[in-house]
Amino acid sequence: MAPESKSTPSTSGFQYGRSLPGRFYSDIAIFDHDFRTIAATQWLLVDHVSRIPHIGDYFLFSIGGESLIILRDREYQIHALYNVCRHRGSRVCLNSSGRVRSLTCPYHAWTYDLDGRLRAAAAMGPGFDTASYGLRKAHTQIEHGLLFVCLAPEAPPDFELFAGRLRPYLTPHGLAEAKVAVRHVYPTDANWKLVVENFLECYHCKPAHPTYCAVHSPGKLLAFGAGPGSASGDLAAKFSVELAEWEAEAAKQGMVTGMFGDGPESDYFQAASRLPIGRGYLTESIDGLPLAPLMGSVKAFDRAQTAVVFNPLSYVLANSDHAVVLRFTPRGPCSTDIEALWLVHEDAVEGRDYDPLKLVRVWDVTLREDKVITENNQAGVRSATYTPGPHSLHETRVSDFVAWYLRRFA
Amino acid sequence: MAPESKSTPSTSGFQYGRSLPGRFYSDIAIFDHDFRTIAATQWLLVDHVSRIPHIGDYFLFSIGGESLIILRDREYQIHALYNVCRHRGSRVCLNSSGRVRSLTCPYHAWTYDLDGRLRAAAAMGPGFDTASYGLRKAHTQIEHGLLFVCLAPEAPPDFELFAGRLRPYLTPHGLAEAKVAVRHVYPTDANWKLVVENFLECYHCKPAHPTYCAVHSPGKLLAFGAGPGSASGDLAAKFSVELAEWEAEAAKQGMVTGMFGDGPESDYFQAASRLPIGRGYLTESIDGLPLAPLMGSVKAFDRAQTAVVFNPLSYVLANSDHAVVLRFTPRGPCSTDIEALWLVHEDAVEGRDYDPLKLVRVWDVTLREDKVITENNQAGVRSATYTPGPHSLHETRVSDFVAWYLRRFA
Amino acid sequence: MAPESKSTPSTSGFQYGRSLPGRFYSDIAIFDHDFRTIAATQWLLVDHVSRIPHIGDYFLFSIGGESLIILRDREYQIHALYNVCRHRGSRVCLNSSGRVRSLTCPYHAWTYDLDGRLRAAAAMGPGFDTASYGLRKAHTQIEHGLLFVCLAPEAPPDFELFAGRLRPYLTPHGLAEAKVAVRHVYPTDANWKLVVENFLECYHCKPAHPTYCAVHSPGKLLAFGAGPGSASGDLAAKFSVELAEWEAEAAKQGMVTGMFGDGPESDYFQAASRLPIGRGYLTESIDGLPLAPLMGSVKAFDRAQTAVVFNPLSYVLANSDHAVVLRFTPRGPCSTDIEALWLVHEDAVEGRDYDPLKLVRVWDVTLREDKVITENNQAGVRSATYTPGPHSLHETRVSDFVAWYLRRFA
Repeated sequence: MAPESKSTPSTSGFQYGRSLPGRFYSDIAIFDHDFRTIAATQWLLVDHVSRIPHIGDYFLFSIGGESLIILRDREYQIHALYNVCRHRGSRVCLNSSGRVRSLTCPYHAWTYDLDGRLRAAAAMGPGFDTASYGLRKAHTQIEHGLLFVCLAPEAPPDFELFAGRLRPYLTPHGLAEAKVAVRHVYPTDANWKLVVENFLECYHCKPAHPTYCAVHSPGKLLAFGAGPGSASGDLAAKFSVELAEWEAEAAKQGMVTGMFGDGPESDYFQAASRLPIGRGYLTESIDGLPLAPLMGSVKAFDRAQTAVVFNPLSYVLANSDHAVVLRFTPRGPCSTDIEALWLVHEDAVEGRDYDPLKLVRVWDVTLREDKVITENNQAGVRSATYTPGPHSLHETRVSDFVAWYLRRFA
Repeated sequence: MAPESKSTPSTSGFQYGRSLPGRFYSDIAIFDHDFRTIAATQWLLVDHVSRIPHIGDYFLFSIGGESLIILRDREYQIHALYNVCRHRGSRVCLNSSGRVRSLTCPYHAWTYDLDGRLRAAAAMGPGFDTASYGLRKAHTQIEHGLLFVCLAPEAPPDFELFAGRLRPYLTPHGLAEAKVAVRHVYPTDANWKLVVENFLECYHCKPAHPTYCAVHSPGKLLAFGAGPGSASGDLAAKFSVELAEWEAEAAKQGMVTGMFGDGPESDYFQAASRLPIGRGYLTESIDGLPLAPLMGSVKAFDRAQTAVVFNPLSYVLANSDHAVVLRFTPRGPCSTDIEALWLVHEDAVEGRDYDPLKLVRVWDVTLREDKVITENNQAGVRSATYTPGPHSLHETRVSDFVAWYLRRFA
Repeated sequence: MAPESKSTPSTSGFQYGRSLPGRFYSDIAIFDHDFRTIAATQWLLVDHVSRIPHIGDYFLFSIGGESLIILRDREYQIHALYNVCRHRGSRVCLNSSGRVRSLTCPYHAWTYDLDGRLRAAAAMGPGFDTASYGLRKAHTQIEHGLLFVCLAPEAPPDFELFAGRLRPYLTPHGLAEAKVAVRHVYPTDANWKLVVENFLECYHCKPAHPTYCAVHSPGKLLAFGAGPGSASGDLAAKFSVELAEWEAEAAKQGMVTGMFGDGPESDYFQAASRLPIGRGYLTESIDGLPLAPLMGSVKAFDRAQTAVVFNPLSYVLANSDHAVVLRFTPRGPCSTDIEALWLVHEDAVEGRDYDPLKLVRVWDVTLREDKVITENNQAGVRSATYTPGPHSLHETRVSDFVAWYLRRFA
């Protein structure tokens, strides 16, 4: 996390419809500023609550220079405690996950309750106020089993405003009754904004993602490959007949339809959509066949892919039988971790109800391709000759993200 | 070594009785300032003279960006020569230790005598003054066989004032007639001040050092585990009966007793003490049995541990039959080398008189634990949420060190 | 490549006849300034054109943060295209060498012709001007088969003025009808100026290069070991009898003789010479025997070594039967790549006409020694105690280079 406040770097050189000048993708001062103004103020999708079902279960989540102990207390509440002893600052918890009865710092044995309160500290002398030295906390919220954390030192953004409007899209998928079948991290040597820009357009899908393209119809990828606002002009219109037909059927089944995407003026740059995958595909699998039991209130394999963008760092992509949760964690000016969680119904049994290798296949291949693409992009924008080029008709979402980013940044 | 003088970083945010704000443990500018104001002005304990007994014997000592050739000349004097050819600045000496008749730079064959004087340089033309181009020297001093170096560009601190008051504690241990039985380096990813703070309190001994605690009585560790000033309030008083009894016996044998520790106003923050180890232990060994022949004028295994702190970077811990020399070498803002030398009587024969593995056991285990502890501390103080917490009654020596450091720093 | 223009670092502390103050060999700001004022403005010798004989052949050349695609178009013209897509800045070309029909960016499939013009970009909408988005180009020139590149954003230096005066020395060696038999890179942890200084004097040859010294007469090495201006005073005069005798014979054969070396006031600090290698040696081989068929218009093994210095980063050393091309590529303040190409006649057949291991032997050994020497020099000049020492009578060329460098720098 960045030190004291600094002056805001200049945003000169920006032009709507183009990506950012090169320094925005490598400058350490801009990265620190990004961290303070965006990563440390947003609600970040961190994991699924099923990771810590029992009292005392915990895992460590690290972002920037921070380590958070995400753990469940005796009242089954989840806390995000800064992993920094209030005595002399040692890490309190050294294992990446586990189960504890209390947290004892390995240095001087200061001992904290599962809710972070200081329980014992030897020889502190008279006048020491135990109540003042609990572990510091980040804010937490849960939505449909998805755990969010906010590092804001003061009050976090209103969670209901943040999550409420996305709820109708999530509800059918029963994510609160899910479990994590597979998780994988893709460390990417690129600035977080290049990772986001890549995720907000499908202009690159045809050149770069043959596997993904096989699962979706070309018309859909061109019009809405990266959700609402993917394409400008009449590109979206061309897909409207196929879409209207599918939406009518979905509405008949009582499923949510439609889509929306926030503009540059919004607080979180959210989006949501429910769109069909390719004809002949029941879910995003190589052969189009189901990967796992149906989830939530979904009654049939209806070809739907629900996409929810909580903010540019936090995503859910839900099919009828599984969901992929994606979090982008900025690590440094040219380093971002992409972590993917594949969720299935909590009662599904590995080997019987789902095959982990088949489950991850389409998105694992795609995310590996994205890592290579994005790292090549990072290498190129280092050049002194790089200047932002014009976005295509398929990159309006990228243009809007850049504009949104610069408003937050300034 | 740091470049030209810079403005002094602010020491605001400091409060007596607490550790330092986070930036003091990671900022490169503060590290450079520390190097100039502390590491480069103190007498640093570097090694034992027995390492280079013969004419032409040398070893390289590196600190910051500097490499020093520590070598013995034809008059048996020891010099600390900067390993920088006066011609175009090449390293003159490439091996980490050895024996030479003269020093010939491998680049252009400028040749220096063992005392650093330039002896030969080909084709330098008329007017070249050989006498002006000897290797530059750091200051050196020897105390009881311990070699000290000072990098101060001008006159070093008065060595008699520095070492004289500690001599009574060292004399009985015969360190001038010792040899290095074992040496080991513990590279530690932490700021040098965290390494020092850890060494100045025994509050952490019980949670972190079970082996060390077995060798010492709990009362001693609480009262004087890190020497005089380890504990405040009545903690020291509790050990006073046992101590007085042991000191009376020591005085009867003509041994030095007592202790002292400098305060924040001092130049070197020195300390010395002679205290008993645990009942039933003759020396700091796992089983309490002797590890090597008695040293110096010590006549019997009297349970004494003599601790001498020359300055926060230079320590000797002497038992009746061996001594441990510790030097802390700052390498970077978050990197410090801890080097330990185990000394025994120069006539002791490995295998017959001492077993190297047994000799190092207690302190090797303890120093490995200290490395882990200190690195966890460094990881935690990186957090933007870290604030200095209050020191316990066992950490008055740490409080004083921090105050001493800030006086030197300012 | 360095960001926007900055203020020029001070050149105070410089004295003619000595090397530079320490900061010139490690400071990142000075390195960036060097890059802008020297590496990015000079014609840099990059490779031999035989590397890309066919239409579509290419290789990547990287320097600083830049990657250039050096490729041959359908008119057999060679271009140096910046490897940065004009759309969003991705690397266009990922393999280090190969043959292509066109260049298609792997990200969004923007496709460029072999001359860099944008041929196709999907869905760019109305008003998109394809002609404005060709790949950016660096300047290129060819001289005797040697390929030069200049990164200057505006007009490059006049190539005829740059190369014309060196042509008489190159012409006899037939480098345009040569091929690269072997290439090798020597990554060196040292500032580029230390690499250059080492290359401009032979004062170090006797201590450091026994193999090289065996191939040349001692008198020649002392007088002209690093070309004209190697030695001052009467050192050159001593070799004049042997030289005059050899030059008379060369002139009789119609070969160029003589030498010149630019001074500090020049634009490129060029030099050229034609000098004999040691008696009994026909070429720079371990045993003095020929290594490959005669090249160019050379009619006999006449012991000649032609040395051409295009600028301090670009060298050719030609014997009767082979030539060594050297390029020094600055990578960072303390990192420089030395790349060597051994050229032989294009019709020579490996195994029959030349043995690659024998071909490279003398200079490969010498360049490996230079790497070690120069890295030791870098280590030494880091010291706070380093001050520039006086150059010997054999280092006048180094003195002049330093003066030339400071003029360019200021």
